[in-house]
Amino acid sequence: MRHNITQLHEQVKAGNFLAIARGVTIVENSLPGYESLLLSLHETRHARVIGITGPPGAGKSTLVSALLHHWLRENKKIAVLAVDPSSPFNYGALLGDRIRMSEYYTNPNIFIRSLATRGALGGLSAKIIEITDLIREAPFDIIMVETVGVGQSEVEIAGLADCTIVALVPEAGDEVQTLKAGVMEIADIFVVNKADRADAEGLYRNLRILAHEKSTETHETPVIKTVATENTGIEELATEIDKFLETQKQQPAKRLHLMTEKCWQLITAQRMKNINHNVLKSELATAILKDDFNLYAFTKDFLNRSQ
Amino acid sequence: MRHNITQLHEQVKAGNFLAIARGVTIVENSLPGYESLLLSLHETRHARVIGITGPPGAGKSTLVSALLHHWLRENKKIAVLAVDPSSPFNYGALLGDRIRMSEYYTNPNIFIRSLATRGALGGLSAKIIEITDLIREAPFDIIMVETVGVGQSEVEIAGLADCTIVALVPEAGDEVQTLKAGVMEIADIFVVNKADRADAEGLYRNLRILAHEKSTETHETPVIKTVATENTGIEELATEIDKFLETQKQQPAKRLHLMTEKCWQLITAQRMKNINHNVLKSELATAILKDDFNLYAFTKDFLNRSQ
Repeated sequence: MRHNITQLHEQVKAGNFLAIARGVTIVENSLPGYESLLLSLHETRHARVIGITGPPGAGKSTLVSALLHHWLRENKKIAVLAVDPSSPFNYGALLGDRIRMSEYYTNPNIFIRSLATRGALGGLSAKIIEITDLIREAPFDIIMVETVGVGQSEVEIAGLADCTIVALVPEAGDEVQTLKAGVMEIADIFVVNKADRADAEGLYRNLRILAHEKSTETHETPVIKTVATENTGIEELATEIDKFLETQKQQPAKRLHLMTEKCWQLITAQRMKNINHNVLKSELATAILKDDFNLYAFTKDFLNRSQ
Repeated sequence: MRHNITQLHEQVKAGNFLAIARGVTIVENSLPGYESLLLSLHETRHARVIGITGPPGAGKSTLVSALLHHWLRENKKIAVLAVDPSSPFNYGALLGDRIRMSEYYTNPNIFIRSLATRGALGGLSAKIIEITDLIREAPFDIIMVETVGVGQSEVEIAGLADCTIVALVPEAGDEVQTLKAGVMEIADIFVVNKADRADAEGLYRNLRILAHEKSTETHETPVIKTVATENTGIEELATEIDKFLETQKQQPAKRLHLMTEKCWQLITAQRMKNINHNVLKSELATAILKDDFNLYAFTKDFLNRSQ
């Protein structure tokens, strides 16, 4: 196995898509060789990781698609990791545009992989970190990680991306929609997608105010209007991504911060790996009916049995 | 020690404030007897736990103070746990109103305790759960837990409160302000405090829309306008709290959910207890400078040394 993993690692570094796909499968499912594969990774940090998050319906996949299109013309090599379970990437169809989709899936410069979310608390983000680090080993210029922003997961994602894009769309009551997003703090770049809608201006203005409030002397979070389906604003977005990545290179403190968060999540996942949330809940369902129920005695017993 | 803890527990159950204070100190600092004290708790569930959260400046402490005033007239016994590091309770002064403050601090029906936030990830909420469960053992009618809503902690707090109040204030660009709160999902009751300000109506209206979007056939999250400094709206707020608590009594599924979240946090804290975030960060700061740095090798080694 050790020998195979070494060989696989070499193939990943050479950019062999089949090897990358196999490596991702090994890491995703913790198959034999999983640990030695991760232990053999180098911090080459060639590829930059771009996180794209936002509520369902914000057109994240369309944005990814438009950015792909843009970067392909610059001869970039790109990996796409779609963690959103509702992402069209997950169904092998991109926006129903099957022609473009098949173009992407057969393009030697694009590697696409979707990941099912598992519902296991703490477990998902550690897996994404591991898989992203594996893909980073291959000679990609850019790795895009698309996640849906509906809970805490998008905050975790911010910990692994070099640049996090938060995509929003105008809607009736857009302040209210964005209230729910809970992803404001993590945005390096805001995108107002579907900006040709009549009510886009209000959302744009609010985000500009927010960005201004968050601004420092040297930096204010850009807010970009796009119509991803028509490639409008994509060039400007790509320029802002480049600019942001350029400034980040000079920030060792940010790298240390990201690395600490990544490590913390790996440690948490490791320490919690034999704790199953569903088992916990079902055991509690019985236990709390007892007259002498004590949460601390239950927890102690549960932990003893979970060694 | 065992004998002393049994005695202390009896005194807590009898409502002896000195014993409660000592018990909180024991739990807060994991002093000897800490575990046996927690293991001796009964699930009497007499007191109801009211969580109050919101961004800094929302007037949370003023709301707590006004609710205290209201409930005192109903001869309720109340405990206040202030987790907000900037809470005036932490400085022994309540809103600069030292006369009322000293009245509260010497009132035999009110127990006030402030908790320093520790910055240790995962550790704070488990401590608050434990301390709240200890205080719940005493004959209080209500336990108010005040936390500042600036990160993920308020989400964790929602897991221990029977009713969570999210307090907001109108401000220039109030949609934008609330964007940052990230606490919308957890509100059982919204409070628009400082509602006498000219721009309160916009915030109120937005929250009503949000509440309506979240509503079910039988429940819509109430939005209450208050001017806590003048006791305006406090009676209505107290009524809504009572109503909410009444409906919650009939919901075993919610109790199981809360209990599972509490237990998960206790388990996480237990499993992570010898992992120090600052130590991790400082070790990483050195390690990432090395040419052959590998995050997984570092993590493995760090975990081995943290057994």
